[in-house]
Amino acid sequence: MLRKIYNEELVNGQCYGNLHYLCKNIGQRLSGSPNAQKAVEWGKKLMESYGFDHVFLQEVMVPHWVRGEKEQGVIIDGKTRIPVHIAALGMSVATPKNGITAEVIELHSLKELDSLGESKLKGKIVFFNRPFDQRFIETFRAYGTAGDQRNQGPAAAAKFGVAGVIVRSLSSTTDDYPHTGATKYDPNGGNIPAAAISTKAADQLSSLLKKNPSLKLYFKQNCQMLPDVLSYNVVGELKGTENPNKFITVGGHLDSWDLAEGAHDDGTGVMGSVEAVRILKALGYRPRNTIRAVFFMNEENGDRGGIKYAELAAQNKEVHLAAIETDAGGFTPRGFGFTGLSTDQLKNLAAWKTLFAPYGSDKLTAGGGGSDISPLKEKTPGVVLIGLSPDSQRYFDIHHSANDVFENVNKRELELGAASMASLIYLIDQHGFSAGN
Amino acid sequence: MLRKIYNEELVNGQCYGNLHYLCKNIGQRLSGSPNAQKAVEWGKKLMESYGFDHVFLQEVMVPHWVRGEKEQGVIIDGKTRIPVHIAALGMSVATPKNGITAEVIELHSLKELDSLGESKLKGKIVFFNRPFDQRFIETFRAYGTAGDQRNQGPAAAAKFGVAGVIVRSLSSTTDDYPHTGATKYDPNGGNIPAAAISTKAADQLSSLLKKNPSLKLYFKQNCQMLPDVLSYNVVGELKGTENPNKFITVGGHLDSWDLAEGAHDDGTGVMGSVEAVRILKALGYRPRNTIRAVFFMNEENGDRGGIKYAELAAQNKEVHLAAIETDAGGFTPRGFGFTGLSTDQLKNLAAWKTLFAPYGSDKLTAGGGGSDISPLKEKTPGVVLIGLSPDSQRYFDIHHSANDVFENVNKRELELGAASMASLIYLIDQHGFSAGN
Repeated sequence: MLRKIYNEELVNGQCYGNLHYLCKNIGQRLSGSPNAQKAVEWGKKLMESYGFDHVFLQEVMVPHWVRGEKEQGVIIDGKTRIPVHIAALGMSVATPKNGITAEVIELHSLKELDSLGESKLKGKIVFFNRPFDQRFIETFRAYGTAGDQRNQGPAAAAKFGVAGVIVRSLSSTTDDYPHTGATKYDPNGGNIPAAAISTKAADQLSSLLKKNPSLKLYFKQNCQMLPDVLSYNVVGELKGTENPNKFITVGGHLDSWDLAEGAHDDGTGVMGSVEAVRILKALGYRPRNTIRAVFFMNEENGDRGGIKYAELAAQNKEVHLAAIETDAGGFTPRGFGFTGLSTDQLKNLAAWKTLFAPYGSDKLTAGGGGSDISPLKEKTPGVVLIGLSPDSQRYFDIHHSANDVFENVNKRELELGAASMASLIYLIDQHGFSAGN
Repeated sequence: MLRKIYNEELVNGQCYGNLHYLCKNIGQRLSGSPNAQKAVEWGKKLMESYGFDHVFLQEVMVPHWVRGEKEQGVIIDGKTRIPVHIAALGMSVATPKNGITAEVIELHSLKELDSLGESKLKGKIVFFNRPFDQRFIETFRAYGTAGDQRNQGPAAAAKFGVAGVIVRSLSSTTDDYPHTGATKYDPNGGNIPAAAISTKAADQLSSLLKKNPSLKLYFKQNCQMLPDVLSYNVVGELKGTENPNKFITVGGHLDSWDLAEGAHDDGTGVMGSVEAVRILKALGYRPRNTIRAVFFMNEENGDRGGIKYAELAAQNKEVHLAAIETDAGGFTPRGFGFTGLSTDQLKNLAAWKTLFAPYGSDKLTAGGGGSDISPLKEKTPGVVLIGLSPDSQRYFDIHHSANDVFENVNKRELELGAASMASLIYLIDQHGFSAGN
């Protein structure tokens, strides 16, 4: 069966063409935007066109943050003015109309804020400049350990009366593209403007600060938060012949950041998810349990779609056997990570490892999942959360930046991911995770 | 030690910068060309700059084929003329000055030549149009099974008095770029002009032929074979402290096709090979056996450098323990293939598999090597031939085409390959392949 699945996908695969449509005919689709709505409508039609048994939308209110005009950043070093590439962090507030001009304090950790204290920070721009630790083989670990600067840095710095925060882009590479991403303010604290700066400009700023610690940075952005908007998760099902109320979910998120086309993040995820179900249908497979492809809305700046999906699952008393998330890029799949399996069940994966070996997706490891499916853990106890693990080397070169475009996706890599997920769904549907497989 | 090797490379890696120089400051370097000579001189200086114990050149006479003016191809379908992208196959002869215009016979295998016979083929253009079989997970297998059309197709067709041969580009993708590559004439047969056509144009030509089997194709090329030229392999050594006359070789080929920059084929191979040795030196490692980085010359259209290297090894009574070739692109390494190990020795690799697992290069399999090192098998019996196995999904999108440029190489993917090879060299140097490891 796995050979049939891979053959169907590598010969008749449609996800690459679908991704092209999503990226080029719709494009960026930040939650609450008109494009996000277009993507919902197109995604529903796509699932309907595949003849899934049931296709429906789940209503969900989502935040509506808009970037506004292109941001400006300038290093003012004496009489020299050096423009730098910046992009407001998602959910950030605007600067005052005339921007912010202030001296810059370069920090490498949030802890340093405490040691410096308000006297040295007040009125300054805090510049978090800790780069990725390149020694990690998996780049997600480098992202994980650098991420506090963007996620919590602005909120932490706000407590010391700083004027603004600039964060080194969370990227594996050194280039001129700022990488945006959500930051989280303290609900009780001050909201200060925060932006990402390209890694190249960050290096430049750091180097100039060493020579002239009193240089200034100017930056201006007029992003804003608008009222919440009604949006949707898109769901398509192949009904289970034996257990229609037991579910295996596979999904990614339909929303994307606004600087590019959301190709790898997470166009490949949604197109790969619907493709996994399409493959099984194309092969005439009649599942025992209900199989669902889900396009989650609002993973990037709120996770509202994932939360809503889990709430509805609990409300409708659905039994969720497993949920697979694909939100790590459409690169060659290496395997899957599993959360919620017992030690014995993890051992049972050895048989599947052998099945996956000819296809290269045989790293079946403990630990895995994703933001969209994680609320299911609490709401539908017993669910096994699974994350597709693609090769991670290129992901953070383009993640959340203007380079996240269709051209950076390889057809076969994307197809192998879809086939891997279809294979795993088939195995779970047939065997579950019991010792019997 | 492996952790140290990977850290050194991921933090201080130089191969990406070196590759940039090779691609952008030298560029294409087909055997016998002035650029190939520049690459030899620069390569030698690079090795010297790393302070290797001994850096030297090995003289080798190489073929000197030149493409000449850009080729022209036009489908003549009644009054409609459709230009198509073609590129002469390497080693092909020119067309007559005014080009060739003839009817086209589309074939999918060399066998079909026999069944059609001279009466149906004479004076026609044979168009080999069998695409890659996408069902192979490893794209090298698809390349292998389609390759006879380019390698032997023109020689086989020449026996039937055809006017010329057009070959569908050996590529995983459908686009407008022709992929060149060597063809081999029968020394006793007629040499007819042969060119590759882009996959997109091949599909178009095939589709038009179905409607109008008597359409004609025009193509023109003025490539030629010049007299052989003196060129060189570039060799750099770290001398063995215990066994200076026992060698572990790591290499790729310095020559490249002429349509682009030879980035993945095989700039990443040569820069990765010298980097593997640089890493060991940077860590202060004193090898037991002599470790050699080799830039082989003329892999693409003659293999003369590899043959010469093996001849000199035999002549100098060198004992070659192992030779590692990297000529499959600078993509994320998945492991190595080994030729020449006993069953017991293959079993012993299990221990190394465990060591490589955290770095993802743990597919250690039977069978592997490469064109440049294969002559060592006969000339230095007992040598273990090893090929680095990177992820293969993207390779044939760009292989031998105008897309084989630096921009398509990822820094970390290249670095992981270099670190994998340095690690393997270290393990072989310390433990050999005996049961004792």
